[in-house]
Amino acid sequence: MTLPAVEPAHDASFDPASGERTGAVAHSTGAEVGHILDSANRAAPALAALSPAIRQAWIAAAADAVLAVADELVGLARAETGLGVARLEGELNRMAASARFYAGVACEGSYLGASRDDLDGGSTLVRWNIPVGVVAVFGASNFPFGFGIFGHDVASALAAGCPVVVKAHPAHPRLSVRLGQIVRDALLNAGAPEGTFDVVVGFDSGLQLVDSPVVRAVAFTGSQQAGLALVERGARRGIPVFAEMGTVNPVFVTPAAAADRDSIAQGFVDSFTLGAGQFCTKPGLILVPAGHGFAASIAEAVSRVPAAPLLTAGIAAAFARGIGELNPHAAAASAPVKTEAHPVAGYEVSPRTIAVDLAQLTPGSRLLEECFGPVALVVEYDDPAAALAALDRLQPSLAASVFTGGDADTDADLAVAQLTRRVGRVAVNTWPTGVATSWSQQHGGPWPATSRPEATSVGGGGLARFVRPVSLQNATSIQLPLMLQPQNPWKLPRRLNGRLVPFE
Amino acid sequence: MTLPAVEPAHDASFDPASGERTGAVAHSTGAEVGHILDSANRAAPALAALSPAIRQAWIAAAADAVLAVADELVGLARAETGLGVARLEGELNRMAASARFYAGVACEGSYLGASRDDLDGGSTLVRWNIPVGVVAVFGASNFPFGFGIFGHDVASALAAGCPVVVKAHPAHPRLSVRLGQIVRDALLNAGAPEGTFDVVVGFDSGLQLVDSPVVRAVAFTGSQQAGLALVERGARRGIPVFAEMGTVNPVFVTPAAAADRDSIAQGFVDSFTLGAGQFCTKPGLILVPAGHGFAASIAEAVSRVPAAPLLTAGIAAAFARGIGELNPHAAAASAPVKTEAHPVAGYEVSPRTIAVDLAQLTPGSRLLEECFGPVALVVEYDDPAAALAALDRLQPSLAASVFTGGDADTDADLAVAQLTRRVGRVAVNTWPTGVATSWSQQHGGPWPATSRPEATSVGGGGLARFVRPVSLQNATSIQLPLMLQPQNPWKLPRRLNGRLVPFE
Repeated sequence: MTLPAVEPAHDASFDPASGERTGAVAHSTGAEVGHILDSANRAAPALAALSPAIRQAWIAAAADAVLAVADELVGLARAETGLGVARLEGELNRMAASARFYAGVACEGSYLGASRDDLDGGSTLVRWNIPVGVVAVFGASNFPFGFGIFGHDVASALAAGCPVVVKAHPAHPRLSVRLGQIVRDALLNAGAPEGTFDVVVGFDSGLQLVDSPVVRAVAFTGSQQAGLALVERGARRGIPVFAEMGTVNPVFVTPAAAADRDSIAQGFVDSFTLGAGQFCTKPGLILVPAGHGFAASIAEAVSRVPAAPLLTAGIAAAFARGIGELNPHAAAASAPVKTEAHPVAGYEVSPRTIAVDLAQLTPGSRLLEECFGPVALVVEYDDPAAALAALDRLQPSLAASVFTGGDADTDADLAVAQLTRRVGRVAVNTWPTGVATSWSQQHGGPWPATSRPEATSVGGGGLARFVRPVSLQNATSIQLPLMLQPQNPWKLPRRLNGRLVPFE
Repeated sequence: MTLPAVEPAHDASFDPASGERTGAVAHSTGAEVGHILDSANRAAPALAALSPAIRQAWIAAAADAVLAVADELVGLARAETGLGVARLEGELNRMAASARFYAGVACEGSYLGASRDDLDGGSTLVRWNIPVGVVAVFGASNFPFGFGIFGHDVASALAAGCPVVVKAHPAHPRLSVRLGQIVRDALLNAGAPEGTFDVVVGFDSGLQLVDSPVVRAVAFTGSQQAGLALVERGARRGIPVFAEMGTVNPVFVTPAAAADRDSIAQGFVDSFTLGAGQFCTKPGLILVPAGHGFAASIAEAVSRVPAAPLLTAGIAAAFARGIGELNPHAAAASAPVKTEAHPVAGYEVSPRTIAVDLAQLTPGSRLLEECFGPVALVVEYDDPAAALAALDRLQPSLAASVFTGGDADTDADLAVAQLTRRVGRVAVNTWPTGVATSWSQQHGGPWPATSRPEATSVGGGGLARFVRPVSLQNATSIQLPLMLQPQNPWKLPRRLNGRLVPFE
């Protein structure tokens, strides 16, 4: 008698355009994950001790290696995500550029917070930031490069001096493993110690990371549900879980901006349908002045957007469910969901908007929660003050936009000031979906946009998640870290007796 | 028929020296706490908008007001804590000096993280830190001034621009209310808006603070049990609870330091019995080289320390319980607990040490947890390498000390490097109990020393707990915060296109 073949545990790979299975990647075993964590733990002291410039060289080598096989990687990503080639090429190039940016931020060295005080009585007190140790990264479904295997979280943790173990996202397992192999080989070939970087596959592998005493911080990008579960699990061990989760990201259009109706309508539709509406900064709600035909103009723009596949069968099912939840509240639906009307290929859906009254935006309403995919709420308001008041009832978000009638538009100034208190970033006369990798970027926000409102997952502040301060009192010079030696060998800005001294 | 008189809910005040009840303070009602929170919430935008220099003037006025009634406050504190007058006078003076320090840190302005980038295409991105809103502070039993009503947490939150509501500690309710009144009046007389600062009384009032949507961050100093309960409660709303909790704070004495045996022994005893052993930085464990008579020298020094009252009946009971838990593990007890031998006044106890073998310091052992009060473990080691290995098994701590034989003592260098990875501060040839309020101070540490290893509750970094970053993209100059205007009116260090520019 022959037992039926049991397929080993794996993440299957699907083509979102057809829904067909195109491959599979075996899950890491518990022993494999344990070995990877041991290696990472052994690598941690070396990474922490080396200068940021040395890590910069490793990271640059990994970026070069990725760019050298860009076509292969974009092909893999396209096959597993259904996203367009141009979009994926752009994302891959930005990933490589961002990695170099974080390495540069590390070299600039402010993130190390080097500080020395001469205390009364002749002793000294120094303080600086040390890497926390091994970091586990859970990337996102929607940015296979930007928030994936060598994305913002990974590069900023490596730049900060932490070994990184990434869990492959089940939405693109083949890309994850291949990209991981390239990055790992490039880092090691450039001189990084074994254990600096690795990838594990499978849900249980992810739990093993979060539960391991070796892992000292977790970075996650994805849904509130998964993010909150990880936060709760990390809290059992008292480790930080930096979860960047989905939010509604409101847009407020002032009455004075009504003259730009059609360009705002078109821009809004372009923004909320970008990547099939699968951006964490997707504008999920627009407040427009009534009586200017905004709703019609938006509906017209939506009707011109072709259907596009969502990333996974699960996301497609959640989108259909979400539309059903939002619709009972809606006065009208502006565009049909193509999947209902006739058979479509794979996980394809058409974009749509849902008209909602201002009065429906009450705390606790489903309307205030993200629906991942190409759907947005359109709210026409009569009274700008009432619309501004509604902004204060919305859930905190990653980002918001305000469209204005120009510099003398006081409605806009009020909206900007008010939204600043509720979101991580306010964009004026531009859409929230573009997130530049820049020193002044804040990609975060109050709960439930993130689990850590003090943190950012994009920009110069990203490294701060992966270090913690220590003080050393009355130490001999040989006990001081290199960065606090008088010669300032790492060329850091430092604080000496309270005075900030940039390196000249 | 007359109903029996029911005493309203209150915190009773006791004299630790006698155990006698000396007064009581009524609990705040739910309505009172609600009113205070409403006022605080209304004050938040004004506090956030004003320059740090204006808040500095308020804080200075409050410090002056406290110093003007120092004798009265020290008297109240002495009666409720049993701590010595000289100690309390010093603590009160340091509290006033620390408040001025935090106001100065705010004026220096690095904590605001002001940053501007010119993006491609002519738009700009700015980032700065905004105060989080109302902060609730739960002070400590053991520092009625330093970590109390106008202590480190309160002053740094006010300096950062947050209204503060403090929960009075039940170990010193009369002091809390009186000190709160003085600080509140002084702040308001100096121009601070109603709601800037207030005090509430009672356990339920504390819960009301943590559960209020108005409160955006919590700072706590105290036991692990209470701290973890608050952390868990805050997590339900996604707000940070910065809990600084009790730890063992190990001391490592190298073989080369044995020549200083008697001064080290005396210093150790002075440190672990300071304030009746009720310091969160109390050295609870010393590792000394065997064969040099350290244990005898320490026992001799302990025998000369008089009994002193603990802060509360609850702490005295926990101390007796803790001694009982530690004793089964101990090879010998070096001093009797006076309360067992004969009747003593109030909550008085005698200091003691407990001899422990290196092999007993295993993960999970009760020996690795704090016992609040004048008790410490003494471990004699034969092999420095084995002792260093034991340091890695200890729970993370707020602080640690290393005593060395001088600059060429490599055992010391290894111990310093190793402890740096497990504690918030390593002190060399000095005791952990002194915590200077200084730019380079780190008073924190990995879990379970604190809930937030990235945070410090003393020193220049303390303000960072009470702000969060926001970005503003493409804003008009009128929408930019004052601190990012070209004239730099607040004279801040700023980052311009990635380059740190100190204000000259």
